[in-house]
Amino acid sequence: MRFELKERDAAGRLCRFTTKHGTVTTPNLLPVINPNKMIIPPKEMKKRFGTDILITNSYIIYKNPELKKQALESGVHALIDFDGSIMTDSGTFQNYVYGDVHLDPVEIVQFQRDIGSDIGTILDVFGTPHQTRETSEQGVNETIERARKSLPHKGEMLLACPVQGSIYPELRRKCAQELSTLSADFFPIGGVVPLMENQRYSDLVRCILSAKQGLDPSKPVHLFGAGHPLVFSLAVALGCDFFDSSAYAKYANDGRMIFQWGTEKFDDLSELPCSCPICSKYTKESLMELDEKDRTLQLALHNLYVSFMELKIIRVALTEGWLWDLVEQRASANPYLSEAVRVLHEPEHLQWLEHHEPTSKKTAVFYTGPQTIHRPIFYRYHQRLINRYTPFFQETVVFPEGTKPYSMFYSKEITDILAHKNVNLVVRSSLGPVPMELDEMYPLAQSVFPNCVDQETGEIAQQRMENFLEGSSILHWDDQMVFSSEGPLKHPIDFDTRRISAVADMQFGVGASDVLFSGDLRLVKSKQTGKIRNILCDGSHVVSMRAEDGLFTLKIDGGLRLHKRMKYPLLRVVVVDDAVPFIKEGKSLFAKFVSDCDPHLRPYDECVIVDEQDTFLGVGRTLLTRNEMLTFQHGVAVKTRDALQQG
Amino acid sequence: MRFELKERDAAGRLCRFTTKHGTVTTPNLLPVINPNKMIIPPKEMKKRFGTDILITNSYIIYKNPELKKQALESGVHALIDFDGSIMTDSGTFQNYVYGDVHLDPVEIVQFQRDIGSDIGTILDVFGTPHQTRETSEQGVNETIERARKSLPHKGEMLLACPVQGSIYPELRRKCAQELSTLSADFFPIGGVVPLMENQRYSDLVRCILSAKQGLDPSKPVHLFGAGHPLVFSLAVALGCDFFDSSAYAKYANDGRMIFQWGTEKFDDLSELPCSCPICSKYTKESLMELDEKDRTLQLALHNLYVSFMELKIIRVALTEGWLWDLVEQRASANPYLSEAVRVLHEPEHLQWLEHHEPTSKKTAVFYTGPQTIHRPIFYRYHQRLINRYTPFFQETVVFPEGTKPYSMFYSKEITDILAHKNVNLVVRSSLGPVPMELDEMYPLAQSVFPNCVDQETGEIAQQRMENFLEGSSILHWDDQMVFSSEGPLKHPIDFDTRRISAVADMQFGVGASDVLFSGDLRLVKSKQTGKIRNILCDGSHVVSMRAEDGLFTLKIDGGLRLHKRMKYPLLRVVVVDDAVPFIKEGKSLFAKFVSDCDPHLRPYDECVIVDEQDTFLGVGRTLLTRNEMLTFQHGVAVKTRDALQQG
Repeated sequence: MRFELKERDAAGRLCRFTTKHGTVTTPNLLPVINPNKMIIPPKEMKKRFGTDILITNSYIIYKNPELKKQALESGVHALIDFDGSIMTDSGTFQNYVYGDVHLDPVEIVQFQRDIGSDIGTILDVFGTPHQTRETSEQGVNETIERARKSLPHKGEMLLACPVQGSIYPELRRKCAQELSTLSADFFPIGGVVPLMENQRYSDLVRCILSAKQGLDPSKPVHLFGAGHPLVFSLAVALGCDFFDSSAYAKYANDGRMIFQWGTEKFDDLSELPCSCPICSKYTKESLMELDEKDRTLQLALHNLYVSFMELKIIRVALTEGWLWDLVEQRASANPYLSEAVRVLHEPEHLQWLEHHEPTSKKTAVFYTGPQTIHRPIFYRYHQRLINRYTPFFQETVVFPEGTKPYSMFYSKEITDILAHKNVNLVVRSSLGPVPMELDEMYPLAQSVFPNCVDQETGEIAQQRMENFLEGSSILHWDDQMVFSSEGPLKHPIDFDTRRISAVADMQFGVGASDVLFSGDLRLVKSKQTGKIRNILCDGSHVVSMRAEDGLFTLKIDGGLRLHKRMKYPLLRVVVVDDAVPFIKEGKSLFAKFVSDCDPHLRPYDECVIVDEQDTFLGVGRTLLTRNEMLTFQHGVAVKTRDALQQG
Repeated sequence: MRFELKERDAAGRLCRFTTKHGTVTTPNLLPVINPNKMIIPPKEMKKRFGTDILITNSYIIYKNPELKKQALESGVHALIDFDGSIMTDSGTFQNYVYGDVHLDPVEIVQFQRDIGSDIGTILDVFGTPHQTRETSEQGVNETIERARKSLPHKGEMLLACPVQGSIYPELRRKCAQELSTLSADFFPIGGVVPLMENQRYSDLVRCILSAKQGLDPSKPVHLFGAGHPLVFSLAVALGCDFFDSSAYAKYANDGRMIFQWGTEKFDDLSELPCSCPICSKYTKESLMELDEKDRTLQLALHNLYVSFMELKIIRVALTEGWLWDLVEQRASANPYLSEAVRVLHEPEHLQWLEHHEPTSKKTAVFYTGPQTIHRPIFYRYHQRLINRYTPFFQETVVFPEGTKPYSMFYSKEITDILAHKNVNLVVRSSLGPVPMELDEMYPLAQSVFPNCVDQETGEIAQQRMENFLEGSSILHWDDQMVFSSEGPLKHPIDFDTRRISAVADMQFGVGASDVLFSGDLRLVKSKQTGKIRNILCDGSHVVSMRAEDGLFTLKIDGGLRLHKRMKYPLLRVVVVDDAVPFIKEGKSLFAKFVSDCDPHLRPYDECVIVDEQDTFLGVGRTLLTRNEMLTFQHGVAVKTRDALQQG
């Protein structure tokens, strides 16, 4: 197996997953194939949807002598005529639904191995939402025990071990941790179908979060039984990689059509509100003229088009950095989903999410409603404002919100004020306080809020402003404010100096600005935009400021300064000895060669690369969280930007 | 021309619009055809999208000697090879863009008539958003003057007279009113492209609302130049019937793809996040392999698939009654659109919207965020609670929100309390106070709010609760509350009696319950559900209660009672003498036969049908607002439910 993270957003990731039967991109959907009754043949799926991975049920094959014989003789790929990756389920869900499955847990794993399944699943114990904690714990223990017994029999097959634990977060976390210790290959989150059937999305979110918090982050996570696109984006944002859908077929059999916003009965629709090839070829009337079997097939195809489309949208959003926007948009279609998004705002979850949140993104943050201000990126900003930002003076001038970037909108005022008075400058923005010198930093310039926000956003911003200003004497800026009467300052502080100093501390931690910029400072600005580009200190280039996100890129000399003065493990990613030569050649640092990492580093942070003796090797940009660096076996952990020249 | 309203939701409508070249369903989109350069031939559009109406530019034809000759000889339909309805624009927009159009306003109208355009457009004066009020007013006056001069020359062609007035609501309204007086056939809302280009959606909404408030509601309204699906649902909810799109082609030429949530550059996309036939046939890679011309064609087709899909979704939402849900969902994709939705919450606009809001819908209200509580249906409910609802007693027991319907959730408590104490029973719900006896009435039982709402919704509900309880002595219900100590009441008031009385007043006005239910009352309940079905008074069936929305259906005897005691014009729709015989036969009342109507009646309200001498004829259900009944020339105004038997 190979599982490699390529792109990320929120706590979600876009990965390449490789089995013996090929490579697929995650997040992805495994259509469920019933070997007894294939509404859409797997080959047709491959042709229409590019399906390279699907799931079928080993228990159904096992119970049917004919299918069993065929599968053992020629393999499950021949049985269903599909040459992509095949995952098999074990009968656990059938046991939950029908209650009459009697199977030897090890035998069904051996069977899956013998029929050539790419990913088999252990016979786990399905935990239902109404179970007591005790019953759930027994189920979890039994699931772990079965995993332990099954793993030695998996052969070359990957083995999926579902995380159970009903609605008890600590059980989910425990189950996840123990299965991770056992080195299972693939982690379904099980027992969630009853939650989804009852739209208990808040509980679903808690189940996912607690499982994820216990799981080895380098393994694929599959939300078992999630087939409705409504929940896909939220689940992906929390780190789910796979879904499976029998919904496309079940709903079609029931005359129901899946849409992004929910489900509609075909009979109730006045026309087909979709542009997929099926809904473009047929009208409601012409579909009604088909015989029932054919109509069911067409509805099933529609359902898969819509489901795969949602995954395409999610992958684009994840790659472009607007996955949270998408999650919140989808939540607006369903009150229970909207409630589930609120679960993420609880401090413990926000903290976990903040660890995964990239430092910067390709796209701006778009306000979607009261959820937006609770996003991890703003949580981080306000945390850092408290912990890393130091006001320059005792007095603060507060500006009302203007056009972004604020420092341009208020440039005349800034020049006037700073020439005459040593004060802090702060904008009262829709997302809370923005010190003027941070105004170009992601996500402050890169966020779009309406002029008129909802009351919740307004009050949170107000509260944060009050906290920020506590202890400061406040001057509210207005048009009539004149500072020239105070006479010019003898040594006014340059606004640019303020900016680089404040950004450096916010980005690298308190004290970073002193380390980076002590000495003879020279700022090189863009001739076109007038923005700071390069910063030289004592003649050497320490950092550059990126135009797109107002954050610094570390140069070798900047890295050396930080390395010298900031204590281990601050800002470090540590390379094992074997890999040191590669780094010295400027090659990227792969996760499997990382032995440690500063826990404060976030994805897409600038970092210092060192060897195990903390010798400085170079500077780079992280792609993974610390936890990911320490577990992933494949893929890049740090993109080396520059390595120290030897000699 | 025939323009007939078939379905409605919000202030939007689904109509059938007929020209000499056929009938189309609105809301609809007219693709813009450039006669010089047809990226997609009209016939191909008809085949792929079912396009039955499009728009082309008469000025371009007029200026090109070859095209002009051909158009005059064989007509515009032959020129572009299309047999559906063709609308032509006049060169106004070209004049706005290039500033060099010199045309005789009457001549260009005659030209459009002569080439056989189905809908021609006058040469109006484009009002830009940055104009002064004076300049705008001159433009409006000139536009009106040109309409006046052009109308006599239209022949059999329908003539579109655009509403101008820049961003001045009173000018927009005035222009709309005067053009309506002139009996123009078709009303584009013009001068809005610069607003849309700059995402000034709040201003756009004000332009649409002020135009609509001045316009004859029986004529089609076209939002000129609106081609991005992002704004379609909001514009439809405000009563726009047509859009036109050159965006599909312009964006394609520019390598951009239209999506429901906005626009993306083809080059920036990692894959195609869509399931339309184009995006299902091609991958990003295979599209890149096409030559540029062919790729542009494919992008243009994609853009139209997405645009037409949005219209299909809108028509389904409108028919099913979830147009507001859709509007709010779309607004969550764009902060400026979200701000525009807030404009609707201003009291003057809410009032106008409330006039159009149907009394009941097929689907429940879904919470999408803080906008939901501001919807016209809740505005109406709270207005009526103030104006039409009378608390029964001085004391009120307040219940926390439970499962819906509340009266079932709290049935034991209700029985216990009412046996011992004469008190009001009110639930503190997410949308404000809900008197227990109104709990099954639309939209109270038919709304889905999450358990945890945003702060704005919470505070509005709280405020409404406080207003409602003012002057009442309050008992907060809790589990320990015991009323039996007070001893049983001698004559407890039956909860069902409370229910029918309160609903009748809310639905028909204060005093209606006394009129309908005075006498010997008998309630017939459903054996299955236990819900009230039919109400008989003194032996005659006066009303039925609908299970789906908890509102009354009027029976003849109920209608007679209301007619006798409620003064003219209350609850009446008045039929002209000629049409009386049709009503007596039980036929539906067509709009053109309505001479007056109670201004309190809303669409889908129960009403009393009378002749011009206020003689009772029957009962029915309105489909139109008063203003629509008095202007529409086609279609049903009131569905007659039952007519008084003669003799």
